[in-house]
Formats: sequence, structure tokens, C-alpha cells
Amino acid sequence: MIKRDFRKFCVIISGPSGCGKTTLCRKIAEKNREFFYSVSCTTRKPREDESNGRDYYFISREEFEEMVKQNKMLEYARVYEDYYGTPMDPVIKSLQEGKVVIMDIDFQGMRKVKKKMEDSVAIYILPPSIEELKKRIEKRKDSKENAFKRFREALKEMDFWTAYDYVIINKEIDKAVHEIETIINAEKLKRERMIIEREEE
Amino acid sequence: MIKRDFRKFCVIISGPSGCGKTTLCRKIAEKNREFFYSVSCTTRKPREDESNGRDYYFISREEFEEMVKQNKMLEYARVYEDYYGTPMDPVIKSLQEGKVVIMDIDFQGMRKVKKKMEDSVAIYILPPSIEELKKRIEKRKDSKENAFKRFREALKEMDFWTAYDYVIINKEIDKAVHEIETIINAEKLKRERMIIEREEE
Repeated sequence: MIKRDFRKFCVIISGPSGCGKTTLCRKIAEKNREFFYSVSCTTRKPREDESNGRDYYFISREEFEEMVKQNKMLEYARVYEDYYGTPMDPVIKSLQEGKVVIMDIDFQGMRKVKKKMEDSVAIYILPPSIEELKKRIEKRKDSKENAFKRFREALKEMDFWTAYDYVIINKEIDKAVHEIETIINAEKLKRERMIIEREEE
Repeated sequence: MIKRDFRKFCVIISGPSGCGKTTLCRKIAEKNREFFYSVSCTTRKPREDESNGRDYYFISREEFEEMVKQNKMLEYARVYEDYYGTPMDPVIKSLQEGKVVIMDIDFQGMRKVKKKMEDSVAIYILPPSIEELKKRIEKRKDSKENAFKRFREALKEMDFWTAYDYVIINKEIDKAVHEIETIINAEKLKRERMIIEREEE
């Protein structure tokens, strides 16, 4: 008989700075023990409000390069002086446990993960309007100059939405969380995720 | 800004005799006014418990052939002496009203609709087990011989599940209804169903 595969898949969440993607990912992972939120590694120093293992795994450059050499990064990138990457082992372990893995990574990371794990699902989060995005970015504690730079980068980043499987407009956080859950539940019903098993006699 | 397309899509539901697809389609269409259940046309005589406009539109062979000639059938097929087909106009009208159109048609019909409306979603309904399928078919008021024939046909029909976008195992009707709704709601969030609209200034 045909049944659903126990093994699940990765859900990649991207979006411009200010779209609310990190909050969305956390909310989903907290709500349901079936989800595993993949925490990235970085070689940059933690900011004041960041904690190790929650926001990132803060590791040394040597450790990072060693992981890359041992093929233990599912994807990674260098941004200016620092490395950022998704450690492979927790992802594989969670998938084997039948969990859905949630990743908050960018467009380049999405492309790399999709290459290695073709059945991954990519969701793009958009702000409800450009005006709202600007407001959200300006609200953060940052210099005016930096805010403008980040806004400009966010606009550029927004062009990538066309490369994703799904698009969510994050107007209300609870609605957006529900929409991501709906996508995940529908994805479980995809024909490709069914396996054939001999009927017991 | 990017927003969701008002125009919706067709949802094609197929499955072997005894999988419960007709009940599922009806339940979904009754639950929500956003859904339109497409009633097929046929030239065969109505059975005792069937009513015109609910189970089928019972029309004459001349009417049917005229509709085909005028390109007013979205898909149709001849089964032995009778025609079966999906009338085009109600489908187009419902889509223009922003409704999701639900169709209970077979594999051949699915292929024809997908050719004309590429963004249609195809869902295959499976019984929970072969044993259960056999039981359901035997329960119907029919001769033993006919039941056996229908069971054999159902098994053959079941091979088509691999051509569909989603697969649902209909063990509990309410769960299956919920799963179809989940698929439809996720499909609305597909990137392909987003359109770009200039922001109001």
C-alpha cells in the first residue's frame, strides 16, 4: 500500500531585513515539537543581545574552516570578514527523527541547500508594503545612515522572491505563522513524499 | 507591491471507485462558499437516486455533441455508448468570481484539464487499504459479479496516483476534507499565484 514517508524535509525561510522572518521561524519552532529550528554558525562576535546556541553558534575561524574541510556545513558564505553557515549534523539528525527542519537563511544559502536536498521547500517572506518595511527598519536602534543602507539592501534582496516556491505577505504575525504551517502540512501530502509499502497479509 | 492573484484555480479530485471522492468533493463545496463544485454533463440515463444538476446534468446526445462542436466542454470522454464531460462556462465564470473550482473527474480528464489550465491542482484519493476498498465496493447494492469487476477496475485505476500533485489517504472523511482544504490554502500561497501591482502613492 502507499503511505506517507516518515522522513520529512527542510523549510527554508528568506526575506529582506525587516520582514519579520526570524520571529516567524522562532514562533513556529516553539509551537510544535515536530519542527527543528536550525541555528547557524558564525565567526563574527556576538552582539549584546545575542546568545550562543539561540541566535548563532559563535565559533572561531579555525573551527569554521575545519567544519568546511570536513564537509560539515550544509551551506556557508563569507560576508566581508566573517563566515556564516548551516551545520549539517543537526539537520540530518532531525530529518532522521521525522522532524521538519526550519532554516532562516538567504537566497544564496537557499540555492545551495536546494542543490543538496532537492525536496526542500523555499518560502519568501514579504513586508505588507515598502512603506511598512521602511518604518520597521527605521524603528531599530541604528544610525540613520545604516538604516538607509539596510533599507536599500532590503529592496535589492526583495527581487529574489521569484525564485521561491511560496510567498507570504507578513502583515499579521499569527496569520503568517498559520500560513507557513499550512504550507508545511500541504507539502507532506505531495505525491513525491509518498512511498510504496507492501501490504501486511 | 506583490500581492496574491484574485483569480483562483481548478482542483481536480480523482481516485478509484470506493475511495470516497464524491462525498469528499460535496463536503468541501458545501462547507465554503469560496468553492464551486463543477457538475459534469452526461448523455446516460439518470439512476433512481440521481438528480439533475446535483449528480450530473442529464442532456441528450445532440445537445452534448453541439457543446463539443462549440468548444464548450473543458474535457469530455465517451465511455461505451455514453458521453461524459465538464461544461466550460460555469468553470470560467466561477474562476472569474475568485472561486476555487472542484472537479470530480478521472485520470484522462485530469490530463486534459491540466493541458488547458496549467495551474490546476490534481489530488488523488486513496482508500486506507486494499482490504477496505474491497469492503466498500462490496457494500454497495450490486451483483457479486459487478462488484468483482468494479474492484478489479479500481485496482487498475489506482496506478494513476503517481501522475498527481498530491495524494490523500481517505481513512477518516473529516481528516481528508481538512487535508484537501490545507492543500488549497497552501496552493494560494504559491509563488506562481502572486502578481505584481504598483504601490499606490
